[in-house]
Amino acid sequence: MRGKKGLLIVLSGPSGVGKGTVRKAIFSKDNTKYEYSISVTTRNPREGETNGVDYFFKSRDEFEQMIEKGELLEYAEYVGNYYGTPVDYVRQTLDEGRDVFLEIEVQGARQVREKFPDGLFIFLVPPSLHELRSRLTGRGTDSEEIIQDRLNAAKEELMLMNLYDYVVVNDRIESACDTIDSIVAAEHCRRERVEKIYKEMLGVD
Amino acid sequence: MRGKKGLLIVLSGPSGVGKGTVRKAIFSKDNTKYEYSISVTTRNPREGETNGVDYFFKSRDEFEQMIEKGELLEYAEYVGNYYGTPVDYVRQTLDEGRDVFLEIEVQGARQVREKFPDGLFIFLVPPSLHELRSRLTGRGTDSEEIIQDRLNAAKEELMLMNLYDYVVVNDRIESACDTIDSIVAAEHCRRERVEKIYKEMLGVD
Repeated sequence: MRGKKGLLIVLSGPSGVGKGTVRKAIFSKDNTKYEYSISVTTRNPREGETNGVDYFFKSRDEFEQMIEKGELLEYAEYVGNYYGTPVDYVRQTLDEGRDVFLEIEVQGARQVREKFPDGLFIFLVPPSLHELRSRLTGRGTDSEEIIQDRLNAAKEELMLMNLYDYVVVNDRIESACDTIDSIVAAEHCRRERVEKIYKEMLGVD
Repeated sequence: MRGKKGLLIVLSGPSGVGKGTVRKAIFSKDNTKYEYSISVTTRNPREGETNGVDYFFKSRDEFEQMIEKGELLEYAEYVGNYYGTPVDYVRQTLDEGRDVFLEIEVQGARQVREKFPDGLFIFLVPPSLHELRSRLTGRGTDSEEIIQDRLNAAKEELMLMNLYDYVVVNDRIESACDTIDSIVAAEHCRRERVEKIYKEMLGVD
């Protein structure tokens, strides 16, 4: 049972924790219940990434014009590149009663929290910093220095956990996806959200 | 990932909504994740009910002695009979890190909320009051007058919804059970509950 407005679901977490992988797994299911908000970025596409599917890839000039025009719900500069979320799609989809799913960096999540305090903010964490290091190394495209920078950034980002509603461990991708689905299902049942609807339904003022 | 202490899960709702049926369905699964707290009652066993399984059946004298000795977490008198929850089992099981599941009347839930404000309070509601009436009639053991009393009680109980954290519609039993499981899974991920554990794990103060 759902309210009239959709839920804004924000998945974030430290770099390298695998939030992109979890997001892809969620949206690879046939019965995905969320609308995915595609981010804009100025970074180069990685192998296998498609413009308009994984990201909208833009130049710095184009991105900065979007900032000036107020077309971004949030944006962040991260490892020398911009990442941002187009605002129109998000507002429109929520108004239509559908849940919107954002997968963004922690800097951006903080901006979204200010604009959508009722959003559902989920922080994805690795089982341990040791495993985070392994993953970053395993990616094989970054130097030791960049890896160390990212680990330090991740430690700082973990301090940001207190801005979030939920913390999910990315121990197994399938398990993390299931937990996120559970969190959204639970949130739709939160009393504050549904009290009004039920009282109307039951004819109680 | 779980905290050191178990969650106290309280399922309640208006009379006739089917909270006993939902509770039985949850505990009939092989992989039940909760410890069921068996209630004490002075009402007569219904057909198929077993002492020590469905309830501990006691006399009024025995029950009132338990009240005097402070052995009950909550108790209520309902349609002329006492219902209560033995407190020792609940505290002990929570301390052992296991989740305890209570299925109780709304009067009792209010008492538990006072003693366990961090509990997880779930309010089960019927799809409509009309269907509640059908169910009560369908039970076939009550007079019209008792049914009307129960409907009025249910309307009052619905006003108590604001004491609860979550509201679950009992449209289909299986669906209600799944939603309750989702709520518990989500609650274990709530940031307030797990922040401390994660920070220890990640070596962050």
